[in-house]
Amino acid sequence: MNNCVFCAIAAGEAPSTTVLDTEDVVAFLDIRPIARGHVLVIPKQHSTDLDSMEPALGSAVFAAGQRISRALRRSDLRSDGANLVVNDGKAAFQTVFHTHLHVVPRWTGDKLRFAGGFLTRRLREPEHTAAAIREGLARLAAEEVG
Amino acid sequence: MNNCVFCAIAAGEAPSTTVLDTEDVVAFLDIRPIARGHVLVIPKQHSTDLDSMEPALGSAVFAAGQRISRALRRSDLRSDGANLVVNDGKAAFQTVFHTHLHVVPRWTGDKLRFAGGFLTRRLREPEHTAAAIREGLARLAAEEVG
Repeated sequence: MNNCVFCAIAAGEAPSTTVLDTEDVVAFLDIRPIARGHVLVIPKQHSTDLDSMEPALGSAVFAAGQRISRALRRSDLRSDGANLVVNDGKAAFQTVFHTHLHVVPRWTGDKLRFAGGFLTRRLREPEHTAAAIREGLARLAAEEVG
Repeated sequence: MNNCVFCAIAAGEAPSTTVLDTEDVVAFLDIRPIARGHVLVIPKQHSTDLDSMEPALGSAVFAAGQRISRALRRSDLRSDGANLVVNDGKAAFQTVFHTHLHVVPRWTGDKLRFAGGFLTRRLREPEHTAAAIREGLARLAAEEVG
């Protein structure tokens, strides 16, 4: 057991509000969101950064991020877009050294709210938010089958 | 023929300084870089955003972005990290409506330069910069073989 909090989340040994869980990745709400529905996608296998992450896992992480971005648009959060961001390395503002992808939903005209989010990062109604994203994922899946 | 400048670049019909060219994606220097070595990765097949992009292409785009991030660290640009960013949708500051991933190299302590880059975006010595990134990709490939 290492001291990595994201490894603990991946192993189910630390609490998180999960929205997607696959063989290779898990996605959960950022506990200090800069917008409602701010999700982190991580590979379950530990790597500190893009340099040490298996490329196949990178593809799985991004695929999950794209899927969540699409789900957010279909969710009751009704996002108009998203920023997908990897801060790779301390020089790039990485603060948790387990590779992760941010998915930050955006809304038309939210510029001020987005900037303001950095000042008031706290997790509100996580279960409600996660439920909305899961519902968006279900709508996406239904769309694909239909 | 549509009016998409990135489709024109992908087809070789508009000039670009290319650093990576695969079956599915092409990566080239941003003509308005916010840092030296700022690269854009695009799928050759047109899509406007993450919602309309084939997930397999998303994986290819991200794999190329990860590879370029790793190459930048090994290049003579000697980056310490990178920000990988997709601005998905106008609400998220997307300005060119052909899906693309930004790879922005970062250096320890460059915070001011990074912010300042938004004010002085221009492409300096593109051939030299692209050559350095290509060399980094070659070093990465050599490392993988060795």
